[in-house]
Amino acid sequence: MITADNLPETTRDGKFDLVAYLKAKQQLCEAALEKALPMQYPETIYEAMRYSLLAGGKRLRPILCLATTEMLGGTTDMAMPTACALEMIHTMSLIHDDLPAMDNDDYRRGKLTNHKVYGEDIAILAGDGLLAYAFEYIAAQTQNVPPQQVLQVIAKLGKAVGAAGLVGGQVVDLESEGKSDTSLKTLNYIHRHKTGALLEICVVSGGVLAGGTPEDLQRLSAYAQNIGLAFQIIDDILDITATQEKLGKSIGKDQQAQKVTYPSLWGIEESKKQAEQLIAEACAQLKPFGEKAQPLLALGHFIVSRDR
Amino acid sequence: MITADNLPETTRDGKFDLVAYLKAKQQLCEAALEKALPMQYPETIYEAMRYSLLAGGKRLRPILCLATTEMLGGTTDMAMPTACALEMIHTMSLIHDDLPAMDNDDYRRGKLTNHKVYGEDIAILAGDGLLAYAFEYIAAQTQNVPPQQVLQVIAKLGKAVGAAGLVGGQVVDLESEGKSDTSLKTLNYIHRHKTGALLEICVVSGGVLAGGTPEDLQRLSAYAQNIGLAFQIIDDILDITATQEKLGKSIGKDQQAQKVTYPSLWGIEESKKQAEQLIAEACAQLKPFGEKAQPLLALGHFIVSRDR
Repeated sequence: MITADNLPETTRDGKFDLVAYLKAKQQLCEAALEKALPMQYPETIYEAMRYSLLAGGKRLRPILCLATTEMLGGTTDMAMPTACALEMIHTMSLIHDDLPAMDNDDYRRGKLTNHKVYGEDIAILAGDGLLAYAFEYIAAQTQNVPPQQVLQVIAKLGKAVGAAGLVGGQVVDLESEGKSDTSLKTLNYIHRHKTGALLEICVVSGGVLAGGTPEDLQRLSAYAQNIGLAFQIIDDILDITATQEKLGKSIGKDQQAQKVTYPSLWGIEESKKQAEQLIAEACAQLKPFGEKAQPLLALGHFIVSRDR
Repeated sequence: MITADNLPETTRDGKFDLVAYLKAKQQLCEAALEKALPMQYPETIYEAMRYSLLAGGKRLRPILCLATTEMLGGTTDMAMPTACALEMIHTMSLIHDDLPAMDNDDYRRGKLTNHKVYGEDIAILAGDGLLAYAFEYIAAQTQNVPPQQVLQVIAKLGKAVGAAGLVGGQVVDLESEGKSDTSLKTLNYIHRHKTGALLEICVVSGGVLAGGTPEDLQRLSAYAQNIGLAFQIIDDILDITATQEKLGKSIGKDQQAQKVTYPSLWGIEESKKQAEQLIAEACAQLKPFGEKAQPLLALGHFIVSRDR
């Protein structure tokens, strides 16, 4: 059985094996998430929360948190409650984003969206429940970390999710819908907040939990911001090029909604180039961490090359 | 100017003056809430959050928190960030509860509901933003309290709001709609969670912040649970008897929705008697705190006598 201590993350020739690393970490996260949210009364709401939280996915966000804590000398156990909370919050943002009043999506990760199965009222409440539980879970379950650092994680996470972060990004995104004159500045704002803020706190929270210095945290922020923007550019490209089967969600929605995207501003080739440059800059930030940065470096390259 | 230190809470003959106390505390809370959530970019979401958060109301929840901290020897300053967070969470629960997919209310506190002004999408996000900000605000702003106690407040608050608390109560409430055979047990579950859990954490968080003993916290829980249930019974009675003008919300909605209520199970007179008994039991819990319990005692009686 794979545990936190015997991750098969290097191949026989000693080279870092990202595929094995991701698979092992993903298994750890799945087990931790399952344990974090057992069924109980009232069943409807726990079922709805579990339906979306345990729907699979790459678990990139919790893995970024775990990888960062470990890079700075911390343990999986220290970071796992926060890692689970990050996935809870990511899930709540998807549930609310899919609602008829928002993106009105019927499918997500190849499955019916939460409100399609449980109704809009329960889907709204399932999102609220996951958001509240995320903070509870960090505060109640984090061990072997000085409480002051746990509070810092909670403060930064709240900011990343709220109107100064993810929620703010979604609002500007909604307001720019159907406008063909959205500026690059606005597009950057949307993605730095809608996707970027949560990715950033994944990495930064891992750093805070492990007791990183202010300089460490600044480097981690820069790494994550660049990765986040690259992630979004790739997402825009995939929205145009990928097949519905591969992504498990409706395709070309950006085009249908007449949204300005990076490829619509730059073209696909230039967008790819920009994404690769962002990844290079992200990875440069990790130089001082040496060999230990291998998982985060590999994750950066993985994000830019996924599904192509 | 009224400050935390010169509250005009006693009349000239030395008797506790609840009206003056409430007015003074309410002013402190209004100022603190205004300061907690200034306007910024993106304006739409801050405007929507402020619209509901600063819409007035009695501020009973933050006042319960402040009063409890002070009863146990703590200061207003120690408790104010948590008090503000409690009002943010109460507000988010009202915004989401009023949505078309939930109670579908057009008016709240005599004003148009959030989604009627800003649209459903923004109302959902405003609720999410307030919920995330509440946790951020406690973690980032609480001072002169040991961090371990602040974490305990956050853990208990998350539980009170999530599927094991408020959200769970709302779900069971939704499921019992239109059913005329809802049992007293289910009715108690709904209200202990939908209204009671948040009122309980208002009082308990005040106790935790002030460093209350486990016995103190147990007494505070019992006080709040009884007050919470009495509060709900009175609310049910008011739903039948009050005029629309007085409450500023649509009247008789419970009856329209064919909901089982305490008056529908017990009749109005028996319901009043039960509420008064609950208040008496609540107040009995505060005996060991002596004179210092006066504000909480008076608040208990205020709740049972309001608007009649």
